[in-house]
Amino acid sequence: MVEADEALRVIKRGCDELLIEQELVEKLASGRPLRVKAGFDPTAPDLHLGHTVLLNKLRQFQLLGHEAMFLIGDFTGMIGDPTGKNVTRKPLTRDQVIENARTYEQQIFKILDPEKTLVMFNSSWMGEMSAADLIGLAAKHTVARMLERDDFHKRYGSGQPIAIHEFLYPLIQGYDSVAMKADVELGGTDQKFNLLVGRELQKHYGQAPQVVLTMPILEGLDGVNKMSKSLGNYIGIHEPPNEMFGKLMSVSDDLMWRYIELLSFEPLDSVAQWKREVAAGRNPRDIKVMFAQEIITRFHDKDAAVRALADFEARFREGAIPDNIPEIRIEAGGGPLSIVQALKQAGLTASTSEAMRMIEQGGVKINGEKVGDKALLLLKDETVVLQVGKRKFGKITVA
Amino acid sequence: MVEADEALRVIKRGCDELLIEQELVEKLASGRPLRVKAGFDPTAPDLHLGHTVLLNKLRQFQLLGHEAMFLIGDFTGMIGDPTGKNVTRKPLTRDQVIENARTYEQQIFKILDPEKTLVMFNSSWMGEMSAADLIGLAAKHTVARMLERDDFHKRYGSGQPIAIHEFLYPLIQGYDSVAMKADVELGGTDQKFNLLVGRELQKHYGQAPQVVLTMPILEGLDGVNKMSKSLGNYIGIHEPPNEMFGKLMSVSDDLMWRYIELLSFEPLDSVAQWKREVAAGRNPRDIKVMFAQEIITRFHDKDAAVRALADFEARFREGAIPDNIPEIRIEAGGGPLSIVQALKQAGLTASTSEAMRMIEQGGVKINGEKVGDKALLLLKDETVVLQVGKRKFGKITVA
Repeated sequence: MVEADEALRVIKRGCDELLIEQELVEKLASGRPLRVKAGFDPTAPDLHLGHTVLLNKLRQFQLLGHEAMFLIGDFTGMIGDPTGKNVTRKPLTRDQVIENARTYEQQIFKILDPEKTLVMFNSSWMGEMSAADLIGLAAKHTVARMLERDDFHKRYGSGQPIAIHEFLYPLIQGYDSVAMKADVELGGTDQKFNLLVGRELQKHYGQAPQVVLTMPILEGLDGVNKMSKSLGNYIGIHEPPNEMFGKLMSVSDDLMWRYIELLSFEPLDSVAQWKREVAAGRNPRDIKVMFAQEIITRFHDKDAAVRALADFEARFREGAIPDNIPEIRIEAGGGPLSIVQALKQAGLTASTSEAMRMIEQGGVKINGEKVGDKALLLLKDETVVLQVGKRKFGKITVA
Repeated sequence: MVEADEALRVIKRGCDELLIEQELVEKLASGRPLRVKAGFDPTAPDLHLGHTVLLNKLRQFQLLGHEAMFLIGDFTGMIGDPTGKNVTRKPLTRDQVIENARTYEQQIFKILDPEKTLVMFNSSWMGEMSAADLIGLAAKHTVARMLERDDFHKRYGSGQPIAIHEFLYPLIQGYDSVAMKADVELGGTDQKFNLLVGRELQKHYGQAPQVVLTMPILEGLDGVNKMSKSLGNYIGIHEPPNEMFGKLMSVSDDLMWRYIELLSFEPLDSVAQWKREVAAGRNPRDIKVMFAQEIITRFHDKDAAVRALADFEARFREGAIPDNIPEIRIEAGGGPLSIVQALKQAGLTASTSEAMRMIEQGGVKINGEKVGDKALLLLKDETVVLQVGKRKFGKITVA
C-alpha cells in the first residue's frame, strides 16, 4: 500500500483542479478500491497523445489499487443529432458502437490494466430510461444554472440557438455517475461544469458526491493550440516509430517538460532529478530521447524504440547535424511561408533562385528529410531544422 | 350542413384569438369531421361555470359535426412534482386518474354529446415514450423560444428558479396534439404559447398544424377576478338550483351579457334580439331569468329550474322587494365590511346599535334570506340586496 501522501501526490500530478481534495483524502483513507470514471466519445476511437492524458491518470489510479471505469457515451451517439440539422452526424448503430469499443480496447490497454478496467456503455442504463424518468432527472437542475455554463452563456448572450435537449445532455452525463456509483470522475478542464452536475445529481440520489479531477488539455507540437487531428499538430498512437520519434524530438524544451508531466510514467522524483541535471548543464536532448523512447515502447515495443533512436542518430550522423544550430525567427506576416522564401530570409541561400536550384539538386533537408517539393509551405509558429548542402543549418521559426 | 359562414360565426363566438382563421376555413371546407382537442387537468374534476367555457366551445364544434377530444393530462399528474419541493402535490395513482376521469364524465356529458366525444389520456402515448424519444422532442425547440413564454420570462428575469423539466411540459402538451392528430386545439388565453408549440411540433412531425382557438378566462360573480373556487366568486355546476339561481340573478347587467355570450347555448340571433329589446326598455332582469333557467336546466333539469324561479319569486313577493331598489355604494377602504356597518352607512338603520337590534329581531334580510349572524361580513366588490323591516331596501355594493 502506497502512503496516503504519496498517493495524493501521484493523483495531483499535472492536474488542473481537484474538487474537493478533502473528500478525496477521506475516500482514499477508507481503504476500499475507488470507482474512477472517465467518459469518452463513441465516435472517434483513433487516439492521439492528447487523448491519453486522461487514460494515464486512470492508470495512476489503477496502480494505486483503484478501479478504472472507461465509459463510452454511446447513448447520445446512437441518437445522433436529434435536431436533424447536422446531416453528417448520423446516428451510430449498435454494431458501430461495438466495433468502436473494440478499437478503443486495442488502444487503451496499451495504457490501462485490463484486469482493473470496466468498459461501460451508458446505453445500458439510459436505453432503459423512460421519458417520465428523464423528466424526474430534468427537475433536479434549473435553467439558470445551466445557462451559467460557459458555452451556453455565450450562445444565449449572442442569440445563437440552444436546442432544449442540449440542457439534458449534461444531466445524462451526470446521471451516468449515479448509475456507475462513481467515487471520482476525470475530465478535461472543458468538462468541469458537467462533472459538477454529476456531483449534484449523486447528492439528489442519495450518494456521496464524486470527487472531480480535471486535467489540462494537452498542447499540440506547436506548443500553442490544443493537440488535434484537424490542426495537424498531433502524434497519433498508431504512428510509425520513426515518425513518433521525429515529432517528439522536434518539440521545444519547455513543451518537453509539459509532455513529460502529463504523458510519462516515470516517477515524479526521476523527473525532478532530470530537471536538476538540465539546470546543471545536461543537454535537454538526452531527456527528450529518453522520453521519446518511453512513448514508442508504450505504443509499439522496446525494439521499435531502439531502432527509431538508431535511425534518428544515423540520419543525424549522416547529415552531420551539429549540436548547436543557430535559431532564426522569420517574419511571415501571419501567413504561411514558402520554403524558398524561408531559405532566403534565413540567409541559408543567397536568393530564392538559389533556393529553388538547391531543392532541385536534392541539397535541402527539412528536419533531416530531403525536400522534394519547392512549393512546400512552413506554417506560422512552426519550428523546423533546415539544412542546405552539408554545412549550412538553421533552426527556423516562422513568426 | 350548416353554411360555412355561419359555422365560422358560431366558432368565433366569444373567442379571444383564432390562429390562423384561413387555415380553419380550409379545414372546414374539407367537409371531414375535424378533430378538436381541449386539455384538462387530471386533478381537479369539480367543475364550475368557468371550466365550462371550453366545453361549450367543444359542444359547438360537435353540433357542427366535428369530433371533441377531451384530453386528460394524466401523464404529468402521475409524475407529481418531480422536484420534490411541493409535498402537497403527490403523484396521482392510476386508480385516482380513472376515478377522476369518471367524475369528469359525469359532469362533461351534461354539455357534450358522448357519441361524439373521445375521452383520452396522454399517458397512453407518453407512458410508452423512452428517454431517447423525449430527447428527440426536446431537440425541436430552443431555450430562447421557451424563455419567451411570459411566465418563464418573468421568473428568469427576476431570478426565480425554473427547473429544466418545466421546459419539457409545453413540449409534451404539444406532442399530445401530434399523437392525437388534432385539427384544432382550444384553450384559455393563458395557454396560447403552449397551443402554438403544438403547431410547431405537428409541422416537425409532418402534420398540418392545428388551428389554435383561445377563449377568455371567465370572470367570477364579482365581474373582476377570474372565476375560481379559492376566490369564492364561482358557481359550481353541482350547486343546488336555488343557489345557482340566486347567484346568477345577482350578477351585474354587464356581466350578464358576458355570461350569455360564453355560457348560453341560445343562438347569437336570439341574443342580439334580447339586446335590442333591453335597449328599447325591457327589464334586463327578464333576460337574466331566462338565462338562469337555461343554466339550471342544463346542470339539473327543467323542473328544478321552474321550481328555483318560483321559489325566488315567492321570496321576492313575500319580501315585497320592489322592482327599483336604490343602488348604494359604500366605501369600505378595501377591506370587508360588517353588515352592521353596512346597514348604518347605507342609511337603512340610523345607527349600528339599531342595526344590531334589527338583526336580533329577525328584521334584516340579505338577498331575501334572513340574517342571523351580526358578524356577517360583506366582501369588497360584493353586491347584495339588503332589506330592513318591510319597506327599506338597498342594493349595496361594497367599494
